[in-house]
Amino acid sequence: MTETLSTFRPLHDINERGFASDNYSGIHPEVLAAIAAANGGHQVAYGDDVYTARLKELLEEHFGEGIEAFPVFNGTGANVLSLQSILPRWGAVICAATAHINVDENGAPERVGGFKLLTVPTPDGKLTPELIDREAWGWGDAHRAQPLAVSITQTTELGTLYTVEEIRAIADHCHARGMHLHMDGARLANAAAALGLPLRAFTRDAGVDILSFGGTKNGLMFGECVVVLNPSASTGLEYLRKMNMQLASKMRFVSAQLIALLEDGLWLRSASHANAMAARLTEAVRGIDGVRLTQETRANAVFAILDPAAADRIRKQFRFYDWDQATGEVRWMCSFDTTEEDVDAFAAAIAREVGA
Amino acid sequence: MTETLSTFRPLHDINERGFASDNYSGIHPEVLAAIAAANGGHQVAYGDDVYTARLKELLEEHFGEGIEAFPVFNGTGANVLSLQSILPRWGAVICAATAHINVDENGAPERVGGFKLLTVPTPDGKLTPELIDREAWGWGDAHRAQPLAVSITQTTELGTLYTVEEIRAIADHCHARGMHLHMDGARLANAAAALGLPLRAFTRDAGVDILSFGGTKNGLMFGECVVVLNPSASTGLEYLRKMNMQLASKMRFVSAQLIALLEDGLWLRSASHANAMAARLTEAVRGIDGVRLTQETRANAVFAILDPAAADRIRKQFRFYDWDQATGEVRWMCSFDTTEEDVDAFAAAIAREVGA
Amino acid sequence: MTETLSTFRPLHDINERGFASDNYSGIHPEVLAAIAAANGGHQVAYGDDVYTARLKELLEEHFGEGIEAFPVFNGTGANVLSLQSILPRWGAVICAATAHINVDENGAPERVGGFKLLTVPTPDGKLTPELIDREAWGWGDAHRAQPLAVSITQTTELGTLYTVEEIRAIADHCHARGMHLHMDGARLANAAAALGLPLRAFTRDAGVDILSFGGTKNGLMFGECVVVLNPSASTGLEYLRKMNMQLASKMRFVSAQLIALLEDGLWLRSASHANAMAARLTEAVRGIDGVRLTQETRANAVFAILDPAAADRIRKQFRFYDWDQATGEVRWMCSFDTTEEDVDAFAAAIAREVGA
Amino acid sequence: MTETLSTFRPLHDINERGFASDNYSGIHPEVLAAIAAANGGHQVAYGDDVYTARLKELLEEHFGEGIEAFPVFNGTGANVLSLQSILPRWGAVICAATAHINVDENGAPERVGGFKLLTVPTPDGKLTPELIDREAWGWGDAHRAQPLAVSITQTTELGTLYTVEEIRAIADHCHARGMHLHMDGARLANAAAALGLPLRAFTRDAGVDILSFGGTKNGLMFGECVVVLNPSASTGLEYLRKMNMQLASKMRFVSAQLIALLEDGLWLRSASHANAMAARLTEAVRGIDGVRLTQETRANAVFAILDPAAADRIRKQFRFYDWDQATGEVRWMCSFDTTEEDVDAFAAAIAREVGA
Repeated sequence: MTETLSTFRPLHDINERGFASDNYSGIHPEVLAAIAAANGGHQVAYGDDVYTARLKELLEEHFGEGIEAFPVFNGTGANVLSLQSILPRWGAVICAATAHINVDENGAPERVGGFKLLTVPTPDGKLTPELIDREAWGWGDAHRAQPLAVSITQTTELGTLYTVEEIRAIADHCHARGMHLHMDGARLANAAAALGLPLRAFTRDAGVDILSFGGTKNGLMFGECVVVLNPSASTGLEYLRKMNMQLASKMRFVSAQLIALLEDGLWLRSASHANAMAARLTEAVRGIDGVRLTQETRANAVFAILDPAAADRIRKQFRFYDWDQATGEVRWMCSFDTTEEDVDAFAAAIAREVGA
Repeated sequence: MTETLSTFRPLHDINERGFASDNYSGIHPEVLAAIAAANGGHQVAYGDDVYTARLKELLEEHFGEGIEAFPVFNGTGANVLSLQSILPRWGAVICAATAHINVDENGAPERVGGFKLLTVPTPDGKLTPELIDREAWGWGDAHRAQPLAVSITQTTELGTLYTVEEIRAIADHCHARGMHLHMDGARLANAAAALGLPLRAFTRDAGVDILSFGGTKNGLMFGECVVVLNPSASTGLEYLRKMNMQLASKMRFVSAQLIALLEDGLWLRSASHANAMAARLTEAVRGIDGVRLTQETRANAVFAILDPAAADRIRKQFRFYDWDQATGEVRWMCSFDTTEEDVDAFAAAIAREVGA
Repeated sequence: MTETLSTFRPLHDINERGFASDNYSGIHPEVLAAIAAANGGHQVAYGDDVYTARLKELLEEHFGEGIEAFPVFNGTGANVLSLQSILPRWGAVICAATAHINVDENGAPERVGGFKLLTVPTPDGKLTPELIDREAWGWGDAHRAQPLAVSITQTTELGTLYTVEEIRAIADHCHARGMHLHMDGARLANAAAALGLPLRAFTRDAGVDILSFGGTKNGLMFGECVVVLNPSASTGLEYLRKMNMQLASKMRFVSAQLIALLEDGLWLRSASHANAMAARLTEAVRGIDGVRLTQETRANAVFAILDPAAADRIRKQFRFYDWDQATGEVRWMCSFDTTEEDVDAFAAAIAREVGA
Repeated sequence: MTETLSTFRPLHDINERGFASDNYSGIHPEVLAAIAAANGGHQVAYGDDVYTARLKELLEEHFGEGIEAFPVFNGTGANVLSLQSILPRWGAVICAATAHINVDENGAPERVGGFKLLTVPTPDGKLTPELIDREAWGWGDAHRAQPLAVSITQTTELGTLYTVEEIRAIADHCHARGMHLHMDGARLANAAAALGLPLRAFTRDAGVDILSFGGTKNGLMFGECVVVLNPSASTGLEYLRKMNMQLASKMRFVSAQLIALLEDGLWLRSASHANAMAARLTEAVRGIDGVRLTQETRANAVFAILDPAAADRIRKQFRFYDWDQATGEVRWMCSFDTTEEDVDAFAAAIAREVGA
């Protein structure tokens, strides 16, 4: 069959890139190659295939023995399933007000997950034991949704980063109060690259109970994985995944992509590169009058405030999003395929338009 | 980047195929080529990309102007979203007891969709106006989940087929009673091939209001599409898709696959081939003593009763599933990649083992 | 304050009674007296009051030590809470197709409870181990809502009755398969009266894990109680009751009513009387040509088939409901306040109109 | 039957009252008399009775023609049903962070209602157009739970009061943005008494679309009523009430209580009295050194900060709740049965213990 390939042609300019989001990028070539390699023949559907088994082994290499792995379609799915599996029906989740689960998932946590979010404002997207305590109370009171889990994002939605010690302090705080700790790791690889640490060091070894391991923002076509780091904290994921419509029939292709990411260090290479591009961008704009950086650049995101009119002029050449229209804050994201030339041209455009 | 491709190697025998399910098969080469062609550069995430726009055009060519299209991850997602969008919170869905939504989705329709299923036993997986009437009553009674939608599957889970006239009779029956009609078209292409009719003829033109258009079982890596045929019947899909965790960030790749399916007739070629293979298998086993065909073979599924011990011996060479252990009924599925040689070898194995 | 009572006057004929439903009747005078006696002064809201504590003691007298009790507003609430508390999120409940939870609760079990009902047709509203086995399978299959509970109704919606032995056989069957057993006891008192047994004998001692203990149909203004007979099977009711909107603030008045029912045997007197009235009615109509009894009268319900035109003529004098319009089957319910004169006049009307 | 009344005796001191909550109080004698008067004979269950019809008329007298009325069990039920009926599945509700729906209902709005709460901190429990605008954005963005309703509480959970003008400004603001306005009126009567206005003036005439009309906190045994003030904004309450387990079978007794409240002005007499008692208490403690009033007393609640040790000593004589343990703020509630002697004795105890 392979000789009569489709006449399918790209409908877009495959050389155009911007700074809007790491999910505007496509599939890393090594990931695409893995999909192709896993194709052909028949494989058992719904996860009982050799690729999913191999993925489990790779995750054990990274996170240690005794973990469990449930590949899913997307990040919202990974978050909702993770939290459902560690919460009873009456549970609530403490999270930063800026958390993806709170602001970007159209209420899926509440509507599908069935849990309440207890949100805490933060300056930088990071929770602390003190911030958690603003909502960590009321256990045993039937009128209060019971705070039985905390969710943190690493790296955060604001591009900031938790240290190992900060995570461990949160985990200890949670566990001392009977709460489980979830980590939304949609950009976990960027955190590892920034920290210079193995994945295990700031997740399982720091006390995280369950992890949404991100793939899509790091070069996958699609695919995330719920990784249960503390199996005694989680239950029922096999069923929750199906009933919440996150079970892929041809799962070998989700798993093959994740294998490609994990097997030869692609996850780290891609994330390190994206982080480096954000650092380069930060350096390039730091000195520009009219650009004020608002968060420390620790991973692949840069946050800045600039004149909205200038921002609109820049946007005609490179896409990016407003973060807070009220203050003029914008977000610039780098991804695995951002080039040095992209960054330099973008920085030049910023300098030109802000100064105009 | 493309020169340093992964050393990823297949972990399974890419020449081994069975008759277990059409989702045991992989990605059709033309679909994989489309994924590759759509790769590179940046595209707007979450559906505002050129591929999704092109897909809409193609679906309009097939189903007529004024339809709406919402690509999603999987069939359960397509079914639940479709039904949610045509039902109020107090709605119920009349369906065959054998419907996928009733037996294979772990309660996602009830738990995530929030609707009740009113199920009707059928001999062949097909509803009729008379069968629908067993549950189509009680409107206005607050104690009864209100029957406001009917869901039929084409081709059915039993491999049977509705004629255009049968669908139209059901649609008219529904509409006269204030109910909408959903079609689960996970194997819609197989139905078109079997009927020898354009997709529109037995869906929109026959009165179907909303359609789960299947891709995965017809050679996609993953991807289905909710097609709203009667926009006045459906509301909120843009939001429902996100909140039910069926919104792909890199949607261009779902849409590109569906484009590959629809643009050059691949959908029909693949489905016709799968149907032909099932017909060939049916003919080959029809005369075998000890094999009793239990449903008419109209599409790509063959149902038969044979001695369970013989079935187990055959299964050592070719995978397939029991359908009803109580009666010894089994299901044999053909797919786009089933070859004539596969069928002949399988039929020979059946003949050999049943006669043994 | 008591001297300036309202000028409130009845708006209906307080001497008119029919055979429509045991919830058409009002409040038993002893229950109303209990409400009045518990009035005055302040009591802790939401269940931490002396009446609720006393109710717990009384229920322990009936059901033995170690039970737990959660008064709620209504029967649907009691059923949904009971089942939620014994099921994980992925659970399903096997029940008779005629069960109240399936046909009379507008999908509350699915929509609020979040579980799927696996229904089985029965001739008389009663499950058996064999009938249960039609749906008791598929554990471990992520695609199937997991059958982890069975719900039976005593007395059934068809007025029939389980013996102790039948219940024990079901309970043993459930427990051997890892399923819990719920009993919908909206008319539990009628069952005790019919069986001539203490409440405990055919509930806790027969293996029932959790019970919806009915009050409203037996002379309460409103009020049911979830009674946890096997605390190891149930969890979280304190929270489930509140989050599902079944927690009464002035709970002393729910508990006081239930105390009035249980303290001096009112529950049994009222139920025995209602049963006796149904038996009297059965005897009175048994010989009437044109009336065919369709279920054995074991409690306070009589089911019969008669000419619909005659039924409509009778209904002008005494209200009652059709049960199955297709067959002409009707249901005649007796309640605590049905008098012998009511029955005799009703039977006379039946005889007159059927013969007309 | 009436001659053989129960020997039921009170289990508590019917002369003891505190300041813990207006739902610690019992049933107003006129309400109890109405229950008794509506007893006897049979009435159609589930709301098709003469009392519920009469209640509708009375509510029309208060709120004008064209309203709809749905009596329910409790306040959480009234709130969740109201909001569900004015929101699509993807809706969100903007409310004060201190709103009962956010802090006292164990997530029922999210879990049962299926909507997200977008909460705004306020100094006094009152929203304003400006505060609403912090969350009133993002329409059309599929990632954001759509803000389509605002909920305000009158009187607020902090005992404060909206003026007619403030409500109208909020209503206009909502309607201009396509949002509906819900009012949680658990203490609506207290607001009317404080404002000196008819119920309609600050609800329907001010632009409120749907109302949770409170009864329990104003002397009912139990019972609230969803009042649809703008029927074009609400749909499906008949079904929502049943499926969310808020439909009373013997509804005549809910309606009779509400009739007793509304028919002869009892609602206003009781609320005015409770407000007067709170005003008396405020005056009595205003001059006490060591007691700082924290909210203006507008209705039946008094908020104050005092020494926690003193508070605990006072609590040994009169029950009341902490409002904010961090600051030492407490809440003192008056109800229909609070007497002047109660207030004076309580104020004396406060003076004594704070000065001790």
